[in-house]
Amino acid sequence: MVEAKAPRRPRVLRHPAQVVALGFAAAVAVGTALLWLPPARRGEGSATFVEALFTAVSALCVTGHVVVDTREHWSSLGLVVILALAQVGGFGIMTSASLLGVFASRRLGLRSRMLTATESRGFDLGDVRTVLLGVVRVSVVVELVTAVLLTLRLLVGYDRPVASALWEGVFLAVSSFNNAGFALRSGSMTDFVSDPWMCLPVVGASFLGALGFPVLLELRKQFRAPKLWSLHTKLTLATTIPLLVVGTFFLTVNEWRNPATLGHLDWWARPLAGLFQAAATRSSGFNSIDVTQMNGGSWLVMDVLMFIGGGSASTAGGIKVTTFALLAVAVLAEFRGEPTVTLFHRKVADRVVRQALTVALASLGVVVVATTVLVEMTGAPLDQVVFEVVSSFATVGLSSGLLLQLPDTGQVVLALLMFLGRIGPITLGAALALRERTRLYEYPEGRPIIG
Amino acid sequence: MVEAKAPRRPRVLRHPAQVVALGFAAAVAVGTALLWLPPARRGEGSATFVEALFTAVSALCVTGHVVVDTREHWSSLGLVVILALAQVGGFGIMTSASLLGVFASRRLGLRSRMLTATESRGFDLGDVRTVLLGVVRVSVVVELVTAVLLTLRLLVGYDRPVASALWEGVFLAVSSFNNAGFALRSGSMTDFVSDPWMCLPVVGASFLGALGFPVLLELRKQFRAPKLWSLHTKLTLATTIPLLVVGTFFLTVNEWRNPATLGHLDWWARPLAGLFQAAATRSSGFNSIDVTQMNGGSWLVMDVLMFIGGGSASTAGGIKVTTFALLAVAVLAEFRGEPTVTLFHRKVADRVVRQALTVALASLGVVVVATTVLVEMTGAPLDQVVFEVVSSFATVGLSSGLLLQLPDTGQVVLALLMFLGRIGPITLGAALALRERTRLYEYPEGRPIIG
Ligand SMILES: [K+]
Ligand SMILES: [K+]
Repeated sequence: MVEAKAPRRPRVLRHPAQVVALGFAAAVAVGTALLWLPPARRGEGSATFVEALFTAVSALCVTGHVVVDTREHWSSLGLVVILALAQVGGFGIMTSASLLGVFASRRLGLRSRMLTATESRGFDLGDVRTVLLGVVRVSVVVELVTAVLLTLRLLVGYDRPVASALWEGVFLAVSSFNNAGFALRSGSMTDFVSDPWMCLPVVGASFLGALGFPVLLELRKQFRAPKLWSLHTKLTLATTIPLLVVGTFFLTVNEWRNPATLGHLDWWARPLAGLFQAAATRSSGFNSIDVTQMNGGSWLVMDVLMFIGGGSASTAGGIKVTTFALLAVAVLAEFRGEPTVTLFHRKVADRVVRQALTVALASLGVVVVATTVLVEMTGAPLDQVVFEVVSSFATVGLSSGLLLQLPDTGQVVLALLMFLGRIGPITLGAALALRERTRLYEYPEGRPIIG
Repeated sequence: MVEAKAPRRPRVLRHPAQVVALGFAAAVAVGTALLWLPPARRGEGSATFVEALFTAVSALCVTGHVVVDTREHWSSLGLVVILALAQVGGFGIMTSASLLGVFASRRLGLRSRMLTATESRGFDLGDVRTVLLGVVRVSVVVELVTAVLLTLRLLVGYDRPVASALWEGVFLAVSSFNNAGFALRSGSMTDFVSDPWMCLPVVGASFLGALGFPVLLELRKQFRAPKLWSLHTKLTLATTIPLLVVGTFFLTVNEWRNPATLGHLDWWARPLAGLFQAAATRSSGFNSIDVTQMNGGSWLVMDVLMFIGGGSASTAGGIKVTTFALLAVAVLAEFRGEPTVTLFHRKVADRVVRQALTVALASLGVVVVATTVLVEMTGAPLDQVVFEVVSSFATVGLSSGLLLQLPDTGQVVLALLMFLGRIGPITLGAALALRERTRLYEYPEGRPIIG
């Protein structure tokens, strides 16, 4: 709390949320410049400015939307730039969101911190250096294990040369853990739809990446003592897992007889593809089936899952599972007539519910406005537009097919949405929490991260 | 507050929200039976059960959705039944919502009532008899004036015989004030699109009906002393009027060059039709232009306006303007970093914000689920389905054209939505407020009605 009150605090820390936004904008500029260079483009000439900008934003915001075929359009250098941007983007978002959470929890002052000591465990992540090193360590470990598994499978199952298998394995592993959604094939993961040895490592890495650094740190420290987990970790897991199960079940059942998606697969491969696609909505953005051919109901359910997104301070997008869960619990408490919102034997401050409300409604407002703008701009069917808008805002990168038909202005709208969706909920949630006045709490309170 | 604590309170008053739902269900049964009788049907035979059920629900819930042409299908007796159901529905909803508000404010107990005395003015509507008589009086006055204006116009401007002009004038007047949306012509009000003498009385009556009884009562008592108005009245007017202005502006501009809607009209008639259509979304449901031919963006804006709806304890549907305004103000307060939500120099309890949140999110959930069900059931385009679902849930009765293509099961889904949308937000809001525990307030608080 010294940092929060001392007037000598460095100026940048006064508006840390702005620093994050500016940092991402600067990285977009660098990435666009690099991808605009002729050597980044396969063959002659260079990419157009909008192609370079869109791809840089898509990579840095770990979305995975593509306006040009990744493998056909970019040279090896271009692919390395894309992968580096995705890694920087994923790393940047995990560290900055974690650090914003640390600042916010310190700002709440000594008294509340003492009272909430048991709850701040998940967010007393330590100093800046510890957070940076921690994120590097978890990223390297998960990406390494995933890359080894994928490379081995490509060597053994597909008779690929070592260099080629290693390159695709590493590319997919980095893309998975950072939920970037870029693949080296134009069909994303459709070639591997029935291969659990390829699909499950990708699902696993993106699932871990979407849990968020605070949860991963806590799971590593005390995996076997769930009772000691912070409210944030409990809430993230208790929301993530049911959403994944329900999403898998719905998509599998709803697409079971659709010959263009699951219908032509072996019966045992259908739940695998359903799981893969449900997991992809939060928010890796890979696809192992043709998303454009899915039923209208599947799209709507995926819209909802994408909008909810993944965990806070993770590589996933959306309003975050804790935001969704807090609002759901607040509504249930209201239905039951309970005077306060409680979660896992902790009271949740009304102020926190209002922060969740703000993040969710501001996000909903952005989605509605962007949808209206794109409907007016393109005249495309609403289901396509909503899917593309939510997929962009939640940095998922699944496409309804609309993206490739968009004029440059439409692509710029989606690029803005990706940027806003990547930076918005996190900085908004943190800015709201940072600005919260110190209060004396009657009860120890749980403080899940919002946004 | 004696009622709230005495154990001898009559049993029905313990769950007044249930009484309202049961009353409406009983009225639906009676209306369905009447419309199912052969004399209610024009020509030979009787209506089918689903036609009778759907029409009874549509009339009683003052929606105005039609699955059969109103004038062609029903005899004069049938039309009288429909009009009576609409009148009973509008009267029932205004009185029951007002009475639920009275019960809720009494339940809050002596202490908070003394502190909030200046604020409960709008809701100290008096006893049951006063409320019933007040609603009858305002209904009769507004409907009479409207009927006289419309009848005179039909006599003078269209050379209609007296009986015919009187019948259509009365029918439209009752339908307008109760926001029922039933018209005697298959094109609704399209014959009168350029006639302000027909359009403006309809807009005026439905606007008044959509303000709600508490607001009308207060306006009548102290029209010239806006400073004395309750928070509820101020908030309702401060939300209703901007929404109407913005809606009119957007629809007029967005449809200006659309030859199928406004494009073929004189320039001065376009804002009139824009106003008429914007006003119709809250929630009379009349149309003076062909709604099915409007642009996709116009539909989306109308979706939002319909979902918001009109005033509490009014003949309008939706989540209600106060619910919307409270959430918007809570979000703005959060953006500004204010520790409490204030409105017109009144603090709004966090509990009230949570009630608004509950009504809005529960409604949004119903709309999303119903949309998914109908998309799966019909495979119809999403924009049509969303429009039809929101229009039904908010008891607006505008149609995207989907309704007439629906199978019986789909019509039953929409009938359920109308019933849920009519009864749900009101009883939910009241049930939540009724269950609220007595609390000692630090500040005098404003209490707008939720739902
Ligand atoms: K992604
Ligand atoms: K209506």
